[in-house]
Parts: sequence; C-alpha cells; structure tokens
Amino acid sequence: MAAPEIPKKQKAAIYDNPGTVSTKVVEIDVPEPGPGEVLINLYVTVDIVDLKYHWTHSGVCHSDFGIMQNSWKMLPFPTQPGQVGGHEGVGKIVKLGPGAESSGLKIGDRVGIKWISSACGNCPPCQAGSDGLCFNQRISGYYTPGTFQQYTLGPANYVTPIPDGLASDEAAPLLCAGVTVYSALKRSNARPGQWVVISGAGGGLGHLAVQLASKGMGLRVIGIDHGSKEEFVKSSGAEHFVDLTKFPNDDQGVAIGDHVKSLADGLGAHAVIVCTAANAAYAQSVPLLRFNGTVVCVGVPEHDPQPISTAFPGKLITTHATITGSAVGNRTEAIEALNFAARGVIKSHFRTEKMEALTSVFKEMEEGKVQGRVVLDLS
Amino acid sequence: MAAPEIPKKQKAAIYDNPGTVSTKVVEIDVPEPGPGEVLINLYVTVDIVDLKYHWTHSGVCHSDFGIMQNSWKMLPFPTQPGQVGGHEGVGKIVKLGPGAESSGLKIGDRVGIKWISSACGNCPPCQAGSDGLCFNQRISGYYTPGTFQQYTLGPANYVTPIPDGLASDEAAPLLCAGVTVYSALKRSNARPGQWVVISGAGGGLGHLAVQLASKGMGLRVIGIDHGSKEEFVKSSGAEHFVDLTKFPNDDQGVAIGDHVKSLADGLGAHAVIVCTAANAAYAQSVPLLRFNGTVVCVGVPEHDPQPISTAFPGKLITTHATITGSAVGNRTEAIEALNFAARGVIKSHFRTEKMEALTSVFKEMEEGKVQGRVVLDLS
Amino acid sequence: MAAPEIPKKQKAAIYDNPGTVSTKVVEIDVPEPGPGEVLINLYVTVDIVDLKYHWTHSGVCHSDFGIMQNSWKMLPFPTQPGQVGGHEGVGKIVKLGPGAESSGLKIGDRVGIKWISSACGNCPPCQAGSDGLCFNQRISGYYTPGTFQQYTLGPANYVTPIPDGLASDEAAPLLCAGVTVYSALKRSNARPGQWVVISGAGGGLGHLAVQLASKGMGLRVIGIDHGSKEEFVKSSGAEHFVDLTKFPNDDQGVAIGDHVKSLADGLGAHAVIVCTAANAAYAQSVPLLRFNGTVVCVGVPEHDPQPISTAFPGKLITTHATITGSAVGNRTEAIEALNFAARGVIKSHFRTEKMEALTSVFKEMEEGKVQGRVVLDLS
Amino acid sequence: MAAPEIPKKQKAAIYDNPGTVSTKVVEIDVPEPGPGEVLINLYVTVDIVDLKYHWTHSGVCHSDFGIMQNSWKMLPFPTQPGQVGGHEGVGKIVKLGPGAESSGLKIGDRVGIKWISSACGNCPPCQAGSDGLCFNQRISGYYTPGTFQQYTLGPANYVTPIPDGLASDEAAPLLCAGVTVYSALKRSNARPGQWVVISGAGGGLGHLAVQLASKGMGLRVIGIDHGSKEEFVKSSGAEHFVDLTKFPNDDQGVAIGDHVKSLADGLGAHAVIVCTAANAAYAQSVPLLRFNGTVVCVGVPEHDPQPISTAFPGKLITTHATITGSAVGNRTEAIEALNFAARGVIKSHFRTEKMEALTSVFKEMEEGKVQGRVVLDLS
Repeated sequence: MAAPEIPKKQKAAIYDNPGTVSTKVVEIDVPEPGPGEVLINLYVTVDIVDLKYHWTHSGVCHSDFGIMQNSWKMLPFPTQPGQVGGHEGVGKIVKLGPGAESSGLKIGDRVGIKWISSACGNCPPCQAGSDGLCFNQRISGYYTPGTFQQYTLGPANYVTPIPDGLASDEAAPLLCAGVTVYSALKRSNARPGQWVVISGAGGGLGHLAVQLASKGMGLRVIGIDHGSKEEFVKSSGAEHFVDLTKFPNDDQGVAIGDHVKSLADGLGAHAVIVCTAANAAYAQSVPLLRFNGTVVCVGVPEHDPQPISTAFPGKLITTHATITGSAVGNRTEAIEALNFAARGVIKSHFRTEKMEALTSVFKEMEEGKVQGRVVLDLS
Repeated sequence: MAAPEIPKKQKAAIYDNPGTVSTKVVEIDVPEPGPGEVLINLYVTVDIVDLKYHWTHSGVCHSDFGIMQNSWKMLPFPTQPGQVGGHEGVGKIVKLGPGAESSGLKIGDRVGIKWISSACGNCPPCQAGSDGLCFNQRISGYYTPGTFQQYTLGPANYVTPIPDGLASDEAAPLLCAGVTVYSALKRSNARPGQWVVISGAGGGLGHLAVQLASKGMGLRVIGIDHGSKEEFVKSSGAEHFVDLTKFPNDDQGVAIGDHVKSLADGLGAHAVIVCTAANAAYAQSVPLLRFNGTVVCVGVPEHDPQPISTAFPGKLITTHATITGSAVGNRTEAIEALNFAARGVIKSHFRTEKMEALTSVFKEMEEGKVQGRVVLDLS
Repeated sequence: MAAPEIPKKQKAAIYDNPGTVSTKVVEIDVPEPGPGEVLINLYVTVDIVDLKYHWTHSGVCHSDFGIMQNSWKMLPFPTQPGQVGGHEGVGKIVKLGPGAESSGLKIGDRVGIKWISSACGNCPPCQAGSDGLCFNQRISGYYTPGTFQQYTLGPANYVTPIPDGLASDEAAPLLCAGVTVYSALKRSNARPGQWVVISGAGGGLGHLAVQLASKGMGLRVIGIDHGSKEEFVKSSGAEHFVDLTKFPNDDQGVAIGDHVKSLADGLGAHAVIVCTAANAAYAQSVPLLRFNGTVVCVGVPEHDPQPISTAFPGKLITTHATITGSAVGNRTEAIEALNFAARGVIKSHFRTEKMEALTSVFKEMEEGKVQGRVVLDLS
Repeated sequence: MAAPEIPKKQKAAIYDNPGTVSTKVVEIDVPEPGPGEVLINLYVTVDIVDLKYHWTHSGVCHSDFGIMQNSWKMLPFPTQPGQVGGHEGVGKIVKLGPGAESSGLKIGDRVGIKWISSACGNCPPCQAGSDGLCFNQRISGYYTPGTFQQYTLGPANYVTPIPDGLASDEAAPLLCAGVTVYSALKRSNARPGQWVVISGAGGGLGHLAVQLASKGMGLRVIGIDHGSKEEFVKSSGAEHFVDLTKFPNDDQGVAIGDHVKSLADGLGAHAVIVCTAANAAYAQSVPLLRFNGTVVCVGVPEHDPQPISTAFPGKLITTHATITGSAVGNRTEAIEALNFAARGVIKSHFRTEKMEALTSVFKEMEEGKVQGRVVLDLS
C-alpha cells in the first residue's frame, strides 16, 4: 500500500478548562511516531456514554467526563488544560516509527486505541498476562493525547487490530465497554449452561454483557435493572428480568436473593456481574449467588469507598462464595471481544456526531439526556 | 480378618447439660449399623483445641465447646441433653451393615470420622464435588452421636480411610484442622514459589497451614500472629514472621500491608489465609495482597456478622483481588491431607487424656490454659 | 405419592444366545431393591444406534450389539446367556430399598439408568470426580441386568434425575450419547468463541456434539463427515462442513489440516472431538489443531489397538498440542447434559418400537439400515 | 549509573565452517542497539551440555552443536558461515537504543538472553501468553548473533532480568534447561503431593526437573535413568529410582509400568516428564500413568519422527490419559525458574572455560566426554 499523504496540522478536541464542561476544537501538529510507534489516522472515536442510566443510575458521568471535570478521585494528578481527550478510537495506520515494522503491522492496517493505550510488557502484571493492570500503563486521553483528534500515536505492539467485517463505528464502543464486560464474564468462571446475573443489565456495559453472555458464551442470563428497561434487556437475550424497584428497603438483598434463587433452579446464580456503580447493587449481589458462586465487580462506585456490606467471612465460608473485580481487560481479551462483534454476537447502539458537537454532547450527558452512545466522526 | 467380639454396651461422654461446661461418662448401647453403614471401634478422638490463642485471640471456644454450650449461632437448633459429642475420631471397622461391603471396606480397616460425618452424594454441592457444603450433611457430635464414645457409626462411602504409617492419634486432629487448611490453601490457587500469608500462624489451624504450605506445597510463607509465637511459627516453616501487635490502630491494614509488601518482592502476597476469627484480621487481609491475589476466609468470626471493611469494589477492580471462603474441605481433600501427614510433612502437637477427664479439659479450655490439642484415649 | 402396585413378574428382553444376533422376550421376576437401591418402572429404553454411519463409517456395531455378540474385546468376560441388555433407560421409582430414602429420592421421581449404572464412590477415580472411570463400576446390560426390562434396580445415589420438561423418550438416548459428547467437549477446554472440529459430525455422537457445541456452549463448529451428511451437519449448527471423501490418501492429514486451517483463522482448530472410531480419523486429527490445541478421543477403534500415527513428540512439543481421551462422562455431567436437552438445545432423532421387535432391530442394524436411534417402548 | 566505556571491537566465537566441528574466535564490531533494543556486555555464557548422557542416551549433540553441524532437521535453513553461536548468556546492559527506556530497564541492570531471544508480542501465540511458540521468534545463535561474543543485542521488552542473589554463571544454564523443565512441570498440572516421573532423570534437563519438582514444587519424584545415575538422581531429590536397563524388551512399557504403579500408590504416576529424546522412553511413558494422568514431551527425538507407540485412543479414553508437549517456556516462566534458583532450590553443575577453548569443548562433547555443563567466561 502506498504511503498516504499526511498533513502537518490536524483538528483536535481539547479540554480547554478542566474542571468544567468545556471542550474546544483546535488545530495542532500531527505527531511523529517514535521508536516502536505507529501513527493512526482516526476516523471514528467514541467516549460518550449515557452514564446517567447505566453506570450509576444516578446521573453521574463517564470516565472522559470525569477526566474533563477532574472529578475522578482514583486518578493520580489533575487533568491538564489542553489535554486531548478520548479513549476509544479506530482508524488506519499511516506511518510506522523506527522498529515498528517488527510488529508485523503495515500501513493501511485498521487498528484501535483503548483506555489502556500502552502497557510496558515488563512489569509483574504484564508478565502475568494482566496488562490491563500494567504498573506503567498510559491512559488514552489523560496521560497521553487521546482519540479526539484526527491523528494519534499508539505502540505497534499494543494497538488493537480490528477484524475484517466489523465496521469502524461499530468497533469503537467495544474497545472499552465490550472488552470490559467480556473480561468480567471470563473472570466469573461461569460455564455454558450456567446462570449469570447482570446487574445494570440495561446500561452501556450491561446490555453488552447480556448479549455476550447469552448469545456468545452459552450462559443463561437474568438481568436486573429499573422496570423501564425490561423489554430492552430481554431483547438483548436475558431469560428473566428482575425489576429492582420492586425490592425497596432490601439493603441486605434478602428478598431479591430469594427471588433470583426461585428463577435459578431454586439455588441462585453461578455468577453476578455488577455493571452498575451503585453501592446498593453490590450489597445485593452476594445474596444472589448459589454455593461456589462468584460476584465480579465492574462498576466503580464514586465518592468515598464503601465496603460490600454483605461480604461477611462466615457467609463466604459456608457457601464458598467468591468476590473478585475485573478492570478493563487485557489486549487479548480486546481482540477476542471484537471477534464476537465481527460475528454479530454483540452490537452497540450509537448515534454519530461531528467533533465540534462534543461540548454540547457532554452537556447533554450532564443533563442525563444522552440515549445510547455517541460516536464522533473525525474524517 | 475374623470378626471381633462386639460388646452390647459401651462408654460414651455426653453433654448432660448443654449450655454449661459439663460432660458425663455414661454407659450406652453399642449401635447396630444400618444399610450402608459401618460400625467403628474408636480408640482415639480429639476435639479439644487451644482456641484461646488461635481461632480468635480472644479466649473463645472451639466448635465442640460451642456445641456443648449452645453458643454457636450458625447452627440451626439447640444441642440436646445426652448428645454424644466429638467429631475427629479414628478407629477400626468391626462390623458392616447391609450393603456396606460394596464400598470395598473390610472389617479391620482403619477409618476416621470428621466434622461432616455424612454427605448425601446427591445434592448440588455434592454433585459439584463440594461435599463439605452438602445440603444434607450431618455434623458429628451435633446432629448425630459423635466420636466421644467407643463405638460409632459412619457411612461406608463417606468415612475417611487412614493411610498406613500414620498413627491414629496423629491422624485424629488432622481430620478437622488438617483438611480445613489444606482445602483453603488449594482454594487460594497459590502456586509453588508464590507467597502466602497465614494470618493466625501460631494457632491450631495456622501452624498446620504453615507446615503444609511451606513443607508440602512449595509455597513461601509469611506468618502473622502475636510476637510470642514467632519462634514457633518460624520453626513450622515460615520464612518471615510479622508481629501483629506492632501494627496497632491499623484498621485498614495500610501499615501492615506496606510491611508485607516489603517482604514479598515489593508487591505483596499472592494469597492470604485468614485462620483466625478476628474481624480485625479480615480488615487487614486485603491490603496484604498483590494484584491478582486471593484472600481465603477460614475462621468464622463470632457475634453479629461484620463485613470485611476493606472489601471495596474499586480496590477489587483495580487490583483483580479475590476474596473467597473455604469451609471444612471435602472427603477427597481429607484423604490428601492425611497423605501429607503420613509422609511427615505436617504434625500436630497434642497430649493424651482419658475420657473421664473431658470436663476438666473443657474447663481448662474455658480458662484458656490448653496448650496444643488434647486427644482422648477411648481404648 | 401412594406406593404403586408392583407385579411379581415382568417382561424382559434377554440375549439368549450371546455370540449371535438373537434376543428373546421372557418373563422374569421383578427384583427386590437391596440396601440403598431403588426399583424403577422403566417405560422407555434405548440402545440401538445406527452405528454403521457414525461410530466407524464401516458397518460395525454398537456397545449393546457388541455385548450381545461377545465381540467387544475391551470387556473382561463373555456375556452370559440370559443377560438382560440395555443401558439407557428412563422410568419412575416405584420402591425404595432399605436406607435409600437418605438420598432424597421419593417414589414417583423420574430417573435414568446409564452405561455406568453404579459407581462405588470410594475408589481413587470416584474421589477425583471421575466416576465414569470407577474401578468398581457396573455396566448396565452386561455386569448387571440392564434396561430391556420393565423393572430394574439402580443405586439411589447414582441414578440420574430427569429434569422436568424433558420427555422420557427424548431423555433416554441422551443418557449415553449426550453425556459422552458433553463430557468430551468440556474436557477439550475450548472456550466460547473458539473453533472445534467434530469428526464424525453426522453420526449418533457427532450430531449431538455439533448441536451442543454450537447452540449450547458458544463454540464455532466445523463438522467432518461423508459428503452426504453435509446438510444434516449444517442444520445441526456447524458453520463449516468438510467432506472427508475429498481428502483421499491423506494419511498424515496434511491436506485436510491445511483446509481446516483456512477455515479457522488460518491457524486451525482449538479442539477436535473424534466421535468416529476410525483410526484414519485419529491420524488426521492432530494436524487440524492450532498451537495449544486439544484432540479429545471418544470413539474406540475396534480390532487391535493402533497408535495415533501423527502423535509425534516433536510435533506436540513445538505446537503445545494435547491429546486426551474422554470416556462416558460422570454423573454430574449426565445431569448437566440433560439440562441442555430440557432447554431444547440438543435433540436426538429416534423412532419407537416394541420390545418384541428388538431382534429385528438388531438385524436391521447389522445390515446397516437403521437411520437414527431406536427407542423401545416398555410400557 | 554512569554509562560505561564501550569498545568499537570485540571478540566473538563463530561457526567458521558449519557442518563441521569448528569454531573460531574473531574480532568483530560491537553492534549498535536499534529501537527498543539494549546492548548487553556478556561476561558468561553457556551452551555446552553433556548431551551424550541426558538428551538421548545415545551420543547425539545439543542444539548449539546441532546448529554448528547443520544437523537439526527442524530448523528452516542451514547455518551460515560466520554465525555467532550461543543462546544462554548473562551480562549487564551498557547502552539503551531509542525507546528502550520505556521498558524500565537501566544501564547496569543484569539480564539474560535465552534460546528465544525475541518474540513479537503480537502473533496469536504471543497473545495467548505462549511466547515460546511465537510465530516470529528469533533463535539466539542461529537467526541472530548469539551469546558467544562479548557484546550482544536484545529487545528491552524480552531480555530476562536476573534476580539478585543468583550468580551469573549459575543463572546462565538455567535460562534454557531450567525454564524448559519448569514450564513442562507446570504444564503437567501435577499438584503438590502428587507423583511425577522424570524420564532421563540424571541428564541435563532431568536433574534440574528432579530438583525443581521435589524441592520447589512439592511433588514426589520417581526418576528413571541408567543404573549408574541412581545416586545422583536420589541426591537431586527423587524418592525412588528406576533403572531402565532392568526392563529390556519392554517395548510397550508393561513391566516398567507395573513397577512404577507399585511405587506410586498401586496406581501409577500423576505425570511423566520425558526429558530424554529416546523414542523408547516415549513408548514407555503412557503405561506409567494412573487415570487422569499426563505425559509431557520435552526431549525431541532425532531422525524421522515416530509416533508414540502406546498412544492408543482406547487407552486414552478408558484412563483419561493426556499427552502434551512443552517447548522452551515463555519469558514469565524464565523469570519464575530463576527465582527458584535464586532461593537455592535448583543448582546446575558446570565448569568454566575460556572462549578460545570452545572448539575443543565441542570435540569433547562429540566424543561424549563432557560431564555436566560448560560455561564460557567472556569477560
């Protein structure tokens, strides 16, 4: 493939005033790929998720939104003015930096950038295959310029190849949400034919988890969410839907646990994936399990951390219950998750906007009005 | 082997006044084995553990002691007057009930009775190989007459064969404590060469866990206990000892976590086995882990259940930490644990007493004076 | 449920002249359940499979047929005249032997008898959860009177509960073929989204394996068989079909291996399940694998054993290939397999005949004319 | 650390006439590290193993010897004249190429080069954590200039860090043999307390396997080799030694299988690691297993590949035996194996020679006279 023309300048959406809801489209230099890097001409990116409904059920914002607003306490330093945001981008390689050809990548290959845009390959988690926990990870759109620009850099040995047959705008949302839920489902150790509860089943993560579990992984799904999501959750593949609003004052999950047990062989679920960020959902998760069952934590609650109020040693001992957490997945899981999508097993819902609309999209999100995901067209 | 003479009457130690520290040696009928049962002539039994020091660090009693006193809230009904106690017994088969020969057991075979004296083999946990969680389990010395008698019954397909080369008085204490810690170590998924912390390392469970982990399973052990236990814990096989009294006011385990990290590659332990029953030990356990690490809960805290106060979803997510529980192990694990003992890998410390001394032993225990375990000689 | 009337006499189909194709319907006593046994009123049984096409592609007979003819060399002693055959039966419990009630089973419960009709629960394989390999196993219809009779005995703790919603005639064939392929698929360690080749995909075992893998376990299936089976195999759920007759003289599987690689990501399959009994299929199986792949042997070749001619140490080393075998599955797998069937994931094809037609069915089988399975109606 | 002086020229031992036993020490340029590479000042290297005795028991040569002689059929192209050999080297980093600092490595860090000197990190095996099978692997001393020189290059993200406390000359032999057997033992899935047979237990690979299994991994070891090795094998940690010369004409391993069964609980071994390259050892390996056991192939037989003559489908099916292969291990396993060595669990025997002695060492090897390993001092 002939090397394409690469302009000197490009458009990028930056956080011009971190701490507020504000982005600005500016002209900046197209970067030059360093050793082992590739330059990617992004044409789609996505980062805007309707988090009001799925992460927390309480109107809070998404990771990009959090980075823009400097509100995410887990991050080690404040976002800098001028930061180019975004962490789910798909485009084509247009230039290889020195040594990058040893990766086997070529100009024209379609690749993606995800939340962890680079991992060192050397630290203990990387050695253990847990590169999603890399001690030297760089977070796209926070540590490094992200995907809200037309050209971005990525390490040749860490960008995610996009399978043929998967449209770029379909692929982008899966690079974060798709791999996150796939990784969590794997970590649950639930086997085909077993029951898994998806808590927050109608949300951005949850609806993908329901699809992947039921249509891709042979699991039987019980979805939990607000009653208004019932039809959506069932059409995603859930055998049963549980309306959480019918279990008020059920702090210890006794009533909802009994109900889920009645749906799942009288025993409860083999696994629960908590896709929401509500502490209440965590408290209710352990009682949903049968013996030897596993809760996988995915949604990170905001504000001061609270322990899972039903994580009693005695309960874990007498039922062999397991509680674990799953972060954003590793690169191999990203590739596997995209393969499910290329086969049509999972599908994300989104609408497309121009880069200039980013601030208004964030405002819409702040007001809780975004439905589904928003994909930015950078072409 | 010629069938031995079986007397009509035998001696048994009963709880004559449950709710108090009182036992009485009485003469009762030798029972007749029913279908699938074997009659065992017990000559040693053990149930008396120095729990003051290892289960709770606060002077509380052991399961038998709890059953005698009706103080263990997890049990479904009060102990009945006349209950024969005891749940770790070893003896020889003297008679086979109808159909019991299909188990392959013969008169003269040496077998043991453990906490779960019978499992149904049919319920979902049994089908999953988790017969320690059997829905129809019978607890020796509580549901059924226990091992504080000269002759007891056991199901032919559930008694534990005692390997040659392991003395009966050595075997008895391992049928409960030994299998419990072996099962917990297996459940931790720690692999040879990895670091495991034993919390309560100088106690009845802990010292066996230290021996088994270090001498039998190729693990590197860090023991935590009161300073007075240092020498004992190190002689059991621990590479490092951590004196928990040096970390006062460390509710969230920050300081002790940093210390353990410094001992374990700068990263922390691959697994923590909490053998004590102290809520404080649980709170401090999660911070001891490296990424992908596992806490296994073993000691059941008394009183109202408290959640593990460091079981934050965010922490579990960002480190892939796992918290799980392990009950008393299954029958296969009992056999495997005894095999380690037969090879001399683990050794329990005990002194021997006559049956008539049982009440005074319980009183000694109540006062926290028992050192090591007490084995009753029933011969 | 009121105890039903149990007659003194019943009809049974026996092998009156083992070594020939001959069965005879006789009147025999209804047996009395011993300790731990249940008496089952069978109303359907199945054992007649069209093996000409699926086990061996060469006109050889099934296990019952082999037992009748004394032609199966693996068995330790010749079949006795008067043996009641059959090893896949479904009926209702009509009487409990002494002690059988401790299993939780009740009169009226619907249960099944499978190839391994009883396992000791005590031997090393049983302890390891591999009761399908029990050292003291009894084979229904060979060691013990089988399912070609109206009333049969089974151990209360080993009969297979039949889930509600699964018809008895649907369930019977799955007690052998269904559990066998389910067990083999589990043993392959193939994960959802991965490629599995079913060799003999149009046969009695193979077509169930294709259904279970594709519809139940999230696997992507490539079926191999004679060209005439293409439509059937694809309708069972295979994404690709490979006509083995197009690869003549491919002793070492080079050409078929290249073809399968081209279908499976250019790399080959993650697993191959060899459901036929042809040595040629085994020779061709290893070359179908990608690195880290697994061949699971299921069909037992007749005549003198031949090694797998492509099982070269160098090949296994440089690709990390694994070859393993899977027998008839354990009881837990039987229950899990039936649950897939109760949900409609797998379906066996069969026609129903009266007991008196058994000899003519066996003759039909000998001539290779049976299509699908035959279920005997014993009611 | 101040950057050290790096000379322009260095000494290297080359194969001046591949196909013969001939090496020559020449002066060549010190190479310049490219993107992502580090320059290592090697001071010890090893590649000379007494293979006469342990790989094959029949006087054949080692991988370096084979490369020098162009006799290893598995390699894709003939060795070029002037090739710098060697694939187990240890030294210090003296220069970082562009971008190499992102690995976290610094000048002065001690690192090793192993057989697979570089893996792409991108191909399917690399994604699966099986970088020892990397499709784009480079073999040190064959594809790339090896470790028989004073300065060599390695990829910053693939060289092996050497733990403190492990001498460089101790470390070098473990980078190949040590990681190979560690990886094979892991792949066997044998758990602490289980029996593993090491076939070729007195050889270069075997004696490390015995040490690692018995002293590091909690396994019980039965070593098989010629009788002369008995003392050495037992001192390495084997509980039992089997003299293979006592089982002549035992092609199918019947007699040796019975003997091993008698040593291992009457059942046989849980795993067999075949460290020799003899086809006879492979034929005898499967009969040594108990049910559910695993043979791991490690030694690659020379000449035309022969199948394992006891790999019968029927045998694998009725015992659930598994046969798999293990190549040189991945980088994580190399690090873990070195950690066992740093703790003193494994120890290799070697003598030290100057680079100029290389040809004479190879000649010694050809004559089968080398005892233990030879380490070259390059300093």
